Amino acid sequence: MRIALAQINPVIGALTRNTEKVKEYYRRAAAGGADLVVFTELSISGYPPKDLLFYESFLDRERALITGKLLPLTLESGPGILIGASHRLDNKLYNAALRLEKGEIKSVHLKTLLPNFDVFDEERYFTRCMDREVEMIGTLPSAVTICEDIWNDSDFFSAPVYDTDPLESLFALEASLLLNLSASPYHLGKQKLREKMLPFLARKYNTAIIYLNQVGGNDELIFDGSSLIYNQYGDLIYRAAAFDEELIFVETEDLYRPATDVAAPTRDDIGTVINALLLGTKDYVTKTGFKKVALGLSGGIDSAVVAALAAEALGPQNVLGIMMPSPYSSGHSLEDALTLADNLGIEHRTINIDKPFRVFIDLLNEGQGPLLDVAEENLQARIRGNILMHISNREGYLALATGNKSELSVGYSTLYGDMTGGLAVIADVPKTMVYELANHLNVIHNRAIIPERTISKAPSAELRPGQKDQDSLPPYHILDPILELYIEEKLSSSEIIAKGFHKETVKKVIRMVDQSEFKRRQAAPGLRITTSSLGAGRRMPLARGYEE
Amino acid sequence: MRIALAQINPVIGALTRNTEKVKEYYRRAAAGGADLVVFTELSISGYPPKDLLFYESFLDRERALITGKLLPLTLESGPGILIGASHRLDNKLYNAALRLEKGEIKSVHLKTLLPNFDVFDEERYFTRCMDREVEMIGTLPSAVTICEDIWNDSDFFSAPVYDTDPLESLFALEASLLLNLSASPYHLGKQKLREKMLPFLARKYNTAIIYLNQVGGNDELIFDGSSLIYNQYGDLIYRAAAFDEELIFVETEDLYRPATDVAAPTRDDIGTVINALLLGTKDYVTKTGFKKVALGLSGGIDSAVVAALAAEALGPQNVLGIMMPSPYSSGHSLEDALTLADNLGIEHRTINIDKPFRVFIDLLNEGQGPLLDVAEENLQARIRGNILMHISNREGYLALATGNKSELSVGYSTLYGDMTGGLAVIADVPKTMVYELANHLNVIHNRAIIPERTISKAPSAELRPGQKDQDSLPPYHILDPILELYIEEKLSSSEIIAKGFHKETVKKVIRMVDQSEFKRRQAAPGLRITTSSLGAGRRMPLARGYEE
Repeated sequence: MRIALAQINPVIGALTRNTEKVKEYYRRAAAGGADLVVFTELSISGYPPKDLLFYESFLDRERALITGKLLPLTLESGPGILIGASHRLDNKLYNAALRLEKGEIKSVHLKTLLPNFDVFDEERYFTRCMDREVEMIGTLPSAVTICEDIWNDSDFFSAPVYDTDPLESLFALEASLLLNLSASPYHLGKQKLREKMLPFLARKYNTAIIYLNQVGGNDELIFDGSSLIYNQYGDLIYRAAAFDEELIFVETEDLYRPATDVAAPTRDDIGTVINALLLGTKDYVTKTGFKKVALGLSGGIDSAVVAALAAEALGPQNVLGIMMPSPYSSGHSLEDALTLADNLGIEHRTINIDKPFRVFIDLLNEGQGPLLDVAEENLQARIRGNILMHISNREGYLALATGNKSELSVGYSTLYGDMTGGLAVIADVPKTMVYELANHLNVIHNRAIIPERTISKAPSAELRPGQKDQDSLPPYHILDPILELYIEEKLSSSEIIAKGFHKETVKKVIRMVDQSEFKRRQAAPGLRITTSSLGAGRRMPLARGYEE
Repeated sequence: MRIALAQINPVIGALTRNTEKVKEYYRRAAAGGADLVVFTELSISGYPPKDLLFYESFLDRERALITGKLLPLTLESGPGILIGASHRLDNKLYNAALRLEKGEIKSVHLKTLLPNFDVFDEERYFTRCMDREVEMIGTLPSAVTICEDIWNDSDFFSAPVYDTDPLESLFALEASLLLNLSASPYHLGKQKLREKMLPFLARKYNTAIIYLNQVGGNDELIFDGSSLIYNQYGDLIYRAAAFDEELIFVETEDLYRPATDVAAPTRDDIGTVINALLLGTKDYVTKTGFKKVALGLSGGIDSAVVAALAAEALGPQNVLGIMMPSPYSSGHSLEDALTLADNLGIEHRTINIDKPFRVFIDLLNEGQGPLLDVAEENLQARIRGNILMHISNREGYLALATGNKSELSVGYSTLYGDMTGGLAVIADVPKTMVYELANHLNVIHNRAIIPERTISKAPSAELRPGQKDQDSLPPYHILDPILELYIEEKLSSSEIIAKGFHKETVKKVIRMVDQSEFKRRQAAPGLRITTSSLGAGRRMPLARGYEE
């Protein structure tokens, strides 16, 4: 039996367009001799459709497209379809896999484990199904599962999240194929975990595994595809493209013999982060209907990395760099920004903010001249934000915010100033990793597209004379580990201090994180590459007491 | 038996301070002869503590305060305590009610129904408990429940949300008192619903009911208190203060005889909305550590209403109104704003934005003068935002955003411009209701504190010559019902059109709502007074396809 797997990139909510894509992959699969074509979780709506699921009309249209456009394909001798879709039953909504065969919905499998942590809110929309059945795929009794359903093995995980494991009941029914329809977003280390967990399941249940994952950037989330096929011995026999669509064929017979061609181990490194950010940027820009982006170029490393990523994701002709020097900008900053723009081949403009800054100071300081306080630092950043948004609004550029995760975590940034933008490309990248990105981009391009001086100089916001980041913050190689322990590991100050960090530094960092929650609340959506991104997956109170 | 109910206003996360408040209420209750003192859901952490619950250290400190500070109070002859708190058991976290008696945690009741809709995310933090026991309170077998636990009656609700109803099992155990520890936020119509549902339960189960609710503003949510006591015949025998703390005493004997003094029916009207916004504003400002607020005064009705609310919530001496006229401001606007400031007795400043606007135009239009496009409208709003934030940053004012729900829904506002601020006071108030607020404020004050002309003139953003809101938007008496049907009722365009609205108008409004999601994503937190607020309770994709 020949199964085709469609690793597709749907647009959230674009039901008709997504159905057309499904049909296109179906035709290619049929032409390739497939007996069954499998699609990812919630393929027609895209994942995650979020509150669109609260519109009955949305669910109606999704179902109408399935019955009107997809079912007819399977009439006569067309291959069957197994596709992720929503399913209503007894006034409840389920996250389902539908099997379409010979013009009918032959069977329905409903998801049991509903992720409701980090960025996931599935309990908000769906009902858990506790009753799972094995599906005959050809002669193979198969466990048809949806994403999270397979992520609760009590032998693999030391602390399983859920009380139930649908695989236990499905394999008690003697399934010999595990089929998983996923929409599982990328984060650093995720693919390694998949490639450790899946062969474990294959061996534990003596089952072959077909793991099919969505691809594409959807707001903050970047789905990496990287679908996987294991034989029943737990050998990886195929790994699909990362960050790209692919149609994969597999013969079921190959799933039950020793592998002749085992795939190489995965790489999950800074190069993968770059690919994730490229796809995330490209998809956010194009799926919101934009073609081109604009960003401020300061001569510093953050904006340089974002510009380089944008140029690669969208083509240099679609990137505009805006240099906005002030009286406090160093001479080398403008120079480095110009070199970068030339290296990337992007359009650039220089707009000096000196005049508007002086007018504001005249207006607000009653003739006293600059006071060099934080308000004036913010003012400069906000004037730059105004200019960026003006060009964006007038000329149709999507503005990119260039802040990194370290500064966003401690609030070392200006709300409505440098935080301005429709997408924050490196908002989940700690500063120390921004350096890795810069170096790796230069390695990939085999030359210093990001100028050496941009990488080597001490980071500075250049909002007052001689300012350096390290006047206000601990060095990034100390700040970043503290932030990871506090934000990702959820340790307390005393637990972090016990790991050997300086007490006053830890207290200061935590205070900065706690007190800048209001800035993050109004931040642009940021591409997620870790499990502790600062966007939809972080839900902290703003008005709160601080104790510890 | 004498029960004391502590309707308190905790600060989220301020564990020590909240414990001190609990002790203070306990002492007063003991002095008043109470045998048992009841506190609200999650009293020590405040509700909702959100992701603070992911910190083990936070849960540890909460529990240490309970065992170290509260348990000792109950030693010897001190009254018992029934208090909402988190509870860890077998590596799981529960939302619990703890009974403290004679220095020990005598019993623990764990919440069954975990709200996970709108602004609520309890499945993110807590495990459902399916096993409920009756608690003996004096001689009364009692159903000790937590908030949502009582909101799933299948006879009362046509479509109960959950598959289980803990009241059924608790009353099968012959409970005769229903005790509910709540943290239930206000929205328009909520109190009416409570006062309909609770007597229904009293009569259905032949039980007395003590319903104790948290009070206070916590970010977007405004908890209204309004705790209720019913006798077993379903007569309301006491309604506690709305939007204020209170310590209530009740004799259990009074719960089982016909009421001599039935409380009057609730009022749930525009006056209640005003009280909600006053508390929400006051608590957000003070709980974030501010004393004073600043806002732009345009002479229009939105900023006038927000200024009036702020002056009442914080005292006029703590409110700064900033007039920022431009060349496009009408003469009457500055005049009306000044009259308002005088009426309210608030401080005010006038800063003309003409000069910075001209400098930006020179810089960005290359000598062409104003082009009067949307970019320049936004630019004016952003210059005002800069000034407001500059004063806020330098002088320590919390900036208030003044946008209403109608304009926020359709995106008739400038990101980083008039959307600037730490709190959006009327972000959940539709424009038609803003007029009601204005009129009611004038009635309450028995004079036109909000100038008549501010109320009667056609609304305008005054960002280009002769501009009126109604050039871009349908009249608000048509817009607001369409918005309610689309955003709150979740109807499709065709369903809304079928209700008699003009087709093109509906399509246009829906398009505007859909395409302005990115603005709302970066909006200031807005006080919630409906079940369809545009903040944490709305989770829409940004990059999406639009079809219908």
